[in-house]
Amino acid sequence: MEIWRISLFSHHFMKRSCRSLFGRLSGFESEISNPRSSLGSIYKFGNSCGPSTKSSLELHQKKYTQLCCFLLRDHHNILQSSLAMRPDGTYRIHYRSFGSEATKIQRNPSFSTLTPDDIFYFKEILGEKNVIQDPDTLSTANTDWMRKYRGSSQLLLQPRSTEQVSLILKYCNSRRLAVVPQGGNTGLVGGSVPVFDEVIVNVGSMNNTISFDKVSGILVCEAGCILENLGSFLANQGFIMPLDLGAKGSCQIGGNVSTNAGGLRFVRYGSLHGTILGLEAVLANGTVLDMLGTLRKDNTGYDLKHLFMGSEGSLGIITKVSILTPPKLPSVNLALLACEDYFSCQELLQEAKRTLGEVLSAFEFLDNHSMDMGITEALAKAGAVYKYDLSLPVEQIYNIVEEMRLRLGQSAKVLGYGHLGDGNLHLNISTPEYNDAVLAQIEPFVYEWTSKHRGSISAEHGLGLMKANEIHYSKSPETVQLMVSIKKLLDPNGIMNPYKVLPYSLLS
Amino acid sequence: MEIWRISLFSHHFMKRSCRSLFGRLSGFESEISNPRSSLGSIYKFGNSCGPSTKSSLELHQKKYTQLCCFLLRDHHNILQSSLAMRPDGTYRIHYRSFGSEATKIQRNPSFSTLTPDDIFYFKEILGEKNVIQDPDTLSTANTDWMRKYRGSSQLLLQPRSTEQVSLILKYCNSRRLAVVPQGGNTGLVGGSVPVFDEVIVNVGSMNNTISFDKVSGILVCEAGCILENLGSFLANQGFIMPLDLGAKGSCQIGGNVSTNAGGLRFVRYGSLHGTILGLEAVLANGTVLDMLGTLRKDNTGYDLKHLFMGSEGSLGIITKVSILTPPKLPSVNLALLACEDYFSCQELLQEAKRTLGEVLSAFEFLDNHSMDMGITEALAKAGAVYKYDLSLPVEQIYNIVEEMRLRLGQSAKVLGYGHLGDGNLHLNISTPEYNDAVLAQIEPFVYEWTSKHRGSISAEHGLGLMKANEIHYSKSPETVQLMVSIKKLLDPNGIMNPYKVLPYSLLS
Repeated sequence: MEIWRISLFSHHFMKRSCRSLFGRLSGFESEISNPRSSLGSIYKFGNSCGPSTKSSLELHQKKYTQLCCFLLRDHHNILQSSLAMRPDGTYRIHYRSFGSEATKIQRNPSFSTLTPDDIFYFKEILGEKNVIQDPDTLSTANTDWMRKYRGSSQLLLQPRSTEQVSLILKYCNSRRLAVVPQGGNTGLVGGSVPVFDEVIVNVGSMNNTISFDKVSGILVCEAGCILENLGSFLANQGFIMPLDLGAKGSCQIGGNVSTNAGGLRFVRYGSLHGTILGLEAVLANGTVLDMLGTLRKDNTGYDLKHLFMGSEGSLGIITKVSILTPPKLPSVNLALLACEDYFSCQELLQEAKRTLGEVLSAFEFLDNHSMDMGITEALAKAGAVYKYDLSLPVEQIYNIVEEMRLRLGQSAKVLGYGHLGDGNLHLNISTPEYNDAVLAQIEPFVYEWTSKHRGSISAEHGLGLMKANEIHYSKSPETVQLMVSIKKLLDPNGIMNPYKVLPYSLLS
Repeated sequence: MEIWRISLFSHHFMKRSCRSLFGRLSGFESEISNPRSSLGSIYKFGNSCGPSTKSSLELHQKKYTQLCCFLLRDHHNILQSSLAMRPDGTYRIHYRSFGSEATKIQRNPSFSTLTPDDIFYFKEILGEKNVIQDPDTLSTANTDWMRKYRGSSQLLLQPRSTEQVSLILKYCNSRRLAVVPQGGNTGLVGGSVPVFDEVIVNVGSMNNTISFDKVSGILVCEAGCILENLGSFLANQGFIMPLDLGAKGSCQIGGNVSTNAGGLRFVRYGSLHGTILGLEAVLANGTVLDMLGTLRKDNTGYDLKHLFMGSEGSLGIITKVSILTPPKLPSVNLALLACEDYFSCQELLQEAKRTLGEVLSAFEFLDNHSMDMGITEALAKAGAVYKYDLSLPVEQIYNIVEEMRLRLGQSAKVLGYGHLGDGNLHLNISTPEYNDAVLAQIEPFVYEWTSKHRGSISAEHGLGLMKANEIHYSKSPETVQLMVSIKKLLDPNGIMNPYKVLPYSLLS
């Protein structure tokens, strides 16, 4: 659903948009309800629309070939969670766990293994209870949210301050103990879990807000703050986070920044590279970089904070962030529109951007194949899911979906949905169970196609372990080489989140 | 002047703001003219307001202690140009030219000097006419816009392609010939002119637009495009540049990005770190980094383009950029408001941000001392000007102006104006002529004060030669050390824009 400020203006826009697209809509008339409600309105199309989005979806799904819609809840919530969870709380999806053997990577022999002396040291600096060796807790921390990647770490550390993070890393670096920084562990590319026996450092206990300035809207907080909690804190101050995503109840702001999370408000508030004003990070050798500025403008030397944004913990651990937050909007409006084809979606996007300007917060879309996997059916039928997070020029986005459908025929369901306003497609391919033949049909085709159209093979999920070796599809050899040089400069022993982001062959 | 979309909403806001601030306004009643004009309105306050901003300024200047105003023309245009130029086109300001002797820096003895063979090589790759040795042209290129810094380069090169830039740098690196990248040469900190005999590489001939996508608003162009020309090009397409500044008629987009220019639309469209989507840059050794993505989201490895933004040409030369441009607004509204004190300015800013949201494009302010230096008086009396470009928490901004006034007494005029919406103060101190005793009163006090309040000693102008040694006032030693390491990694011979940005002592 689109979110915009209620006004006569948006009402007029809606009416006009409906009319201009009307020729392409089939089988129903438009209906706009409560256009002036101060609590926000759901614009519904169709004679028999129910009062909620969910029922509208159900009613529309058989009628229209495509749906261009604006979702208040992130589609990750709607699709991914529903695909994963049965009513009794168990999972029905066929998960494929890639252990170390499946990654085709050998453990780096230069890394040490843990000794009782190491445990003793960590207990000394962190206190007994923050040095976790309990098998159940470790099992959770070793496994990613999709249960696709699983490590075998024997140690989880929970520092409570930047100084403790610094002491941990300094020690690990001197001992050559590899480290995985972990936040909410909600990533989708295997970036936040160990590959082998890396020490897990989870900053979730560092979850204090440090300051908030109501004049500037600048929030300073520790990296372990959960995104949703920050949103609640800000709501009381009359502000919102510029970032929202499906995992907000678990993900931590440090992880969001480390992975340069995109999400649902990207159209309106832009990239974290624009809204993060400062951060504090700890390098592999324990050096604390205080870049925790709270200024909108600061041109004093190289802006190094950007190196840590999107580097997925491979250059250091982010411990604090400073972020510019926008004022809370007086009202939120949601609209669900049905379009006959992808071209109409593009036309609507252009019209919405041109006419609504920055008032447009999100422009999301689902195709009818995604609709067919609505919640109930997904629960009943869901099998294996191959997930791709692509950026493409908007006019190209749906071509890959259709080409993939032709390519795979009846062997798989191909779903296209995503943040159309950002040019971000989530291509999901569903099969009854994991199948190497299907996978071989998908990869490397999907990456080659994306590269050929100057797209990105990871729009917002990052590379992690899953796509570290595929970086060349989106980045030139010279650029990758410079990344490798910077990695070696900041982390000469390679202890920070090893085997991730960059091809391991270039680092060893 | 503030720029916002004409609507009943903004009209209501204006009326309300006027009322809420009315108690603080003295001596006149409010008057709002043409609030619904489709061409935009100037909101004027005072019974005898004339039709233009200029006359309003003149009428108001004696009455109010401070003026909180929204300027359509950048204050740089209004103040700096007027201070610099007499009606007959000559300059009256006392300029102080810092040659190499005044910088207290010795020429790096490891750099070579030009030979006839070098000239021969450059003519071979660039063609005769793009290798400039003409003394008049060189004199202009050696001197900065403020005529404060002057180098002694004997050679200006004008490449016409990325390949030529690459060949130039590869050659200079192998010969250890130092290089100054130059765009429109409109910088204010001595960053764009040689200190000694560095070869000047001006990319102004690389001024083609490469592509523009009307769906996404993404423009790709060469680095030498003049900002104003890009604006004109986009206007025909229904878009605008997200960046505007007083020097737009001369400055080039490559220079804007290299210096991370801020300017007039920053409140609304944010930092270039958010709007620049990609760039191409050439390293000192001639390596071309193709990072010219045209995607809003791309999380594939370290986002290295940010290293080149704001590094003032010291890490490489930017040759192409890709930038997200916003739609042209259907109307522009301007308002000029008078406030009794700085606190009222802050209150108005908060109200404007809260109520107008992203519709607010700029929030500029001038104090009455700046008003007293309006154009006419400035032309008659202008002498030497000490210019400081500071970022500070909004509530602190005016304290430094007042403290400086107390400190300098009658020996100087202290003016405060700037981009209040960004927390960016331009502190200008005017004396009849340059005076070392006054300078000693100002520096390092102004830097120490700024540092103490966690401000930035360069909000948007950069460090250049002027403030390279002052970086520690805004950045921690560990952060500066990492900058030095990165400089050495990318430019081991130190040929790129030497003596600038970072303390020379740390690089040698």
